[in-house]
Amino acid sequence: MSAPASSDIGRLVVRCPDRPGIVAVLSGLMAELGANITDSQQHSSDPTGGTFTLRLEFLLAGLAQRRPELERRLAALGADWQMTWRLTDAAHRPTLAVFVSKTDHVLQELIYRVRAGDLRAEIAMVVSNHLDLEPVARGAGIPFHHIPVTPSTKADAEARALDLLGDVDLVVLARYMQIVSADFCSRFPERLINIHHSFLPAFVGANPYQAAHDRGVKLIGATAHYVTPELDAGPIIEQEVARVDHRATVEDMRRVGRYVERQVLAQAVTWHVEDRVIVEGPRTIVFA
Amino acid sequence: MSAPASSDIGRLVVRCPDRPGIVAVLSGLMAELGANITDSQQHSSDPTGGTFTLRLEFLLAGLAQRRPELERRLAALGADWQMTWRLTDAAHRPTLAVFVSKTDHVLQELIYRVRAGDLRAEIAMVVSNHLDLEPVARGAGIPFHHIPVTPSTKADAEARALDLLGDVDLVVLARYMQIVSADFCSRFPERLINIHHSFLPAFVGANPYQAAHDRGVKLIGATAHYVTPELDAGPIIEQEVARVDHRATVEDMRRVGRYVERQVLAQAVTWHVEDRVIVEGPRTIVFA
Amino acid sequence: MSAPASSDIGRLVVRCPDRPGIVAVLSGLMAELGANITDSQQHSSDPTGGTFTLRLEFLLAGLAQRRPELERRLAALGADWQMTWRLTDAAHRPTLAVFVSKTDHVLQELIYRVRAGDLRAEIAMVVSNHLDLEPVARGAGIPFHHIPVTPSTKADAEARALDLLGDVDLVVLARYMQIVSADFCSRFPERLINIHHSFLPAFVGANPYQAAHDRGVKLIGATAHYVTPELDAGPIIEQEVARVDHRATVEDMRRVGRYVERQVLAQAVTWHVEDRVIVEGPRTIVFA
Amino acid sequence: MSAPASSDIGRLVVRCPDRPGIVAVLSGLMAELGANITDSQQHSSDPTGGTFTLRLEFLLAGLAQRRPELERRLAALGADWQMTWRLTDAAHRPTLAVFVSKTDHVLQELIYRVRAGDLRAEIAMVVSNHLDLEPVARGAGIPFHHIPVTPSTKADAEARALDLLGDVDLVVLARYMQIVSADFCSRFPERLINIHHSFLPAFVGANPYQAAHDRGVKLIGATAHYVTPELDAGPIIEQEVARVDHRATVEDMRRVGRYVERQVLAQAVTWHVEDRVIVEGPRTIVFA
Repeated sequence: MSAPASSDIGRLVVRCPDRPGIVAVLSGLMAELGANITDSQQHSSDPTGGTFTLRLEFLLAGLAQRRPELERRLAALGADWQMTWRLTDAAHRPTLAVFVSKTDHVLQELIYRVRAGDLRAEIAMVVSNHLDLEPVARGAGIPFHHIPVTPSTKADAEARALDLLGDVDLVVLARYMQIVSADFCSRFPERLINIHHSFLPAFVGANPYQAAHDRGVKLIGATAHYVTPELDAGPIIEQEVARVDHRATVEDMRRVGRYVERQVLAQAVTWHVEDRVIVEGPRTIVFA
Repeated sequence: MSAPASSDIGRLVVRCPDRPGIVAVLSGLMAELGANITDSQQHSSDPTGGTFTLRLEFLLAGLAQRRPELERRLAALGADWQMTWRLTDAAHRPTLAVFVSKTDHVLQELIYRVRAGDLRAEIAMVVSNHLDLEPVARGAGIPFHHIPVTPSTKADAEARALDLLGDVDLVVLARYMQIVSADFCSRFPERLINIHHSFLPAFVGANPYQAAHDRGVKLIGATAHYVTPELDAGPIIEQEVARVDHRATVEDMRRVGRYVERQVLAQAVTWHVEDRVIVEGPRTIVFA
Repeated sequence: MSAPASSDIGRLVVRCPDRPGIVAVLSGLMAELGANITDSQQHSSDPTGGTFTLRLEFLLAGLAQRRPELERRLAALGADWQMTWRLTDAAHRPTLAVFVSKTDHVLQELIYRVRAGDLRAEIAMVVSNHLDLEPVARGAGIPFHHIPVTPSTKADAEARALDLLGDVDLVVLARYMQIVSADFCSRFPERLINIHHSFLPAFVGANPYQAAHDRGVKLIGATAHYVTPELDAGPIIEQEVARVDHRATVEDMRRVGRYVERQVLAQAVTWHVEDRVIVEGPRTIVFA
Repeated sequence: MSAPASSDIGRLVVRCPDRPGIVAVLSGLMAELGANITDSQQHSSDPTGGTFTLRLEFLLAGLAQRRPELERRLAALGADWQMTWRLTDAAHRPTLAVFVSKTDHVLQELIYRVRAGDLRAEIAMVVSNHLDLEPVARGAGIPFHHIPVTPSTKADAEARALDLLGDVDLVVLARYMQIVSADFCSRFPERLINIHHSFLPAFVGANPYQAAHDRGVKLIGATAHYVTPELDAGPIIEQEVARVDHRATVEDMRRVGRYVERQVLAQAVTWHVEDRVIVEGPRTIVFA
């Protein structure tokens, strides 16, 4: 459940080696500064000495003015506790670039959720290797960029895309039917989310609904994950399934799958922009 | 997910008026005593000044020996912060008394989960107004008490039951087909759990599956709740539903319902014995 | 799963008192005409003498030309077997009128599904007592009619609406925040669908999310039903729920609820236009 | 939903090449014999000429006496229509042999469901390569056979098992931790069901929960399937999943998985004994 956004609400995400006292130190700092912790979730990968992860939501009057002080204090703690941290103003709206090809269901869902206020972000641009969805983007008042991709122009196309993306906060592959290069991935570490139209790791690759149909599965799924150079193997953020039966053709599975895909990707993006997802090696921690 | 039970694992549940600094004070105390907080969940009913609730799991070497000190320190804090608290040794196995009538599915599930180690409790006795389930209890090595109930003997029957129950930790009404008196309820505040065979507040009362069938619902449900004097109105702990269709007769709904009921009640009892459920007025907080 | 639409695909829905031989008579007729039954579902409310209901999908070359003959034969059978029947050309796209107030999530979903080809119907008009959603309708190329409603003008408003509706196939109340009159209901018997934002029969009435929050439920639901003069008591077509926890505010429940509502209503409308819903007294048979 | 079992209820399952008129012929035969079809489901793999599959439930007074006549008539039709068929008396209780190793959750569930009358079958024997579950079987009054298996005695062990099994109707591998030989499989075509503790085809093989944990999946699943010589590749009957999060250890996943496994296998076995599952190449048709 998301908190009300106001300029006094902040979020702090912290990671460090697990040692007794870390919660006391951080909450002590918040108390000293006069912040009220309104929500906190923590995870210890191994209670006898692994990685400690914490997400705090807090109310602090005059957060914007007091932010430098808070950052200074966190930096000092960071050195002592080998701690990495991220501090966010909940009122900040991250920017998204959405990559699509020809199908619009996931894009439509992201547009709807941004408009409805359920996804607190701004879709800064839609990028596509096809022209089909230009009207959808334009109709929503979102800049659309057509970057065709062929095997021989792929590197150039990615370079053009990188140029356009600039310092966008998150890149979303919303049924973008191109494999992005390892180099492209490396530009957006933990900031590049894909929706795969199966329950990974089942049905990796190009035509999962056909594969699911051939295998006669009774549930079809979708998986949202961070993209890493290894195809379909990045850390999973969210998964869901829907029931099908023997009457479902491949086309029926695609139809059912569209509703699972849009739900799963929109949920993953929402969690990401609310600083709820922390990558830990090949897995994610989701403070939902 | 439950933590491994060992004599060094403790749980602390705390409630107090929400004020900045409470987390720092509590985590400071834990750090000072050398405890490592391995899991924490908190809830603020209203971030600008409501009730603060916290559940901690922690590792503390020599917990049994250090418990008096911890209790003394918590008692001191309790006075300052108007705080109520409960401290539990995770290795402690609470005792349950299970009330049944003629159907065994919920009792069987509780027995199975205790044996499998998924429900860390001890079923101290089975109490019934009928003899049908005596073999089930005896077969599992659980004392069985037959206390018949008629309108004229109800008060006596409850008195006998209270005698038997002694200081049992939790009373579970596992499809016990008698309404317990307000007086009986008051003896087990927040320690008396019932399974109602519908999605409350729909179908309050005696024959919910018939009512659900008559109304033509497409989902049937079950609700586990703490019992309060007002029938079927106590704080809800857990609910679940299952899909039915037009082919389901009332008997089919009962059959499907049994599997929902056993799952819902077993889950609620498990959360309760793991100190995950906190009652707040007419509602519960469940740190699942 | 819906079949491919082609001009040779027909659907037949039949109801009559249950007597041995009815399936043989109907399938014999289809065989005699050269139709191939590709899908069939039947339901007997009571195998020893209740109501028999059957839905057939069939392939018949030249269906349009052969339809009069088929109708003549069915009419003859209808007399013999006290049978009511409905014959539909699967290629026919029924017209919908969608009534809304200020929230657009259900309307957007219907528009999306029609465009995606998942809901084979045509939204002929959007009617609203407010102007807020005019841009949504116009943006989708759908005529929008503003009919303000006040207590004193309600009868006039409904008269205007009836005028506009003409012979529309189905009226959908997509979060239309007005109670329609018994007279209005009677104009659209089994052709008027509403989405109620709770798991009926829990939380009948005006503010179900507030009521659900006050009661502390762990699941919130939505119910699509045919509208009858008795408020929120018409035959239920579809229901679904979503999980919430103690952190959910009333506003959070509304947000979660929107996604359940749009799914449930869209599903109910889809089944209706595919002739999959048969009303039987206070209940529905859904040949999904 | 299962029908009431009585000696007058029969079930007919039919398969043949799809040709117009097959439904008419079969329902005509039933009508001629005076049977009332109370439930029917059919599937056409390809409406323009694939395989036609039909399952009928019918009421026929004096079924036992009239069965020879019915079989004679079906045999005649079978020749004309290249039809295979299976006729079952719903009152017949098939016999099951359940193979287990050390974990009892699936066996317990099967025992419970047989006793509750939800699974209309008889567990004729429990076979195990370990002695751990002998008390569970004996406690339920079921013969228990201990057949140890080592790599060198595997062939002998299977020979002993085959001897014991005799003409049992269905063999159920209820977390039996041995791979059965191709020869053993071939003795029970479409009569040998296994529960695999993952969402197949993800995590084929020996330690799926560890694999699921390593991969960081958000849902864990179970799959019941007919066993064929190719490991974990037989036709899937039923699948289900449960949600886990980052806090779940491998052991937690196993615990959650047990409840999914017992549900999925019990459902698959129930559908099988009610003649609801038809194998079609690598897939199943389930008339649930």
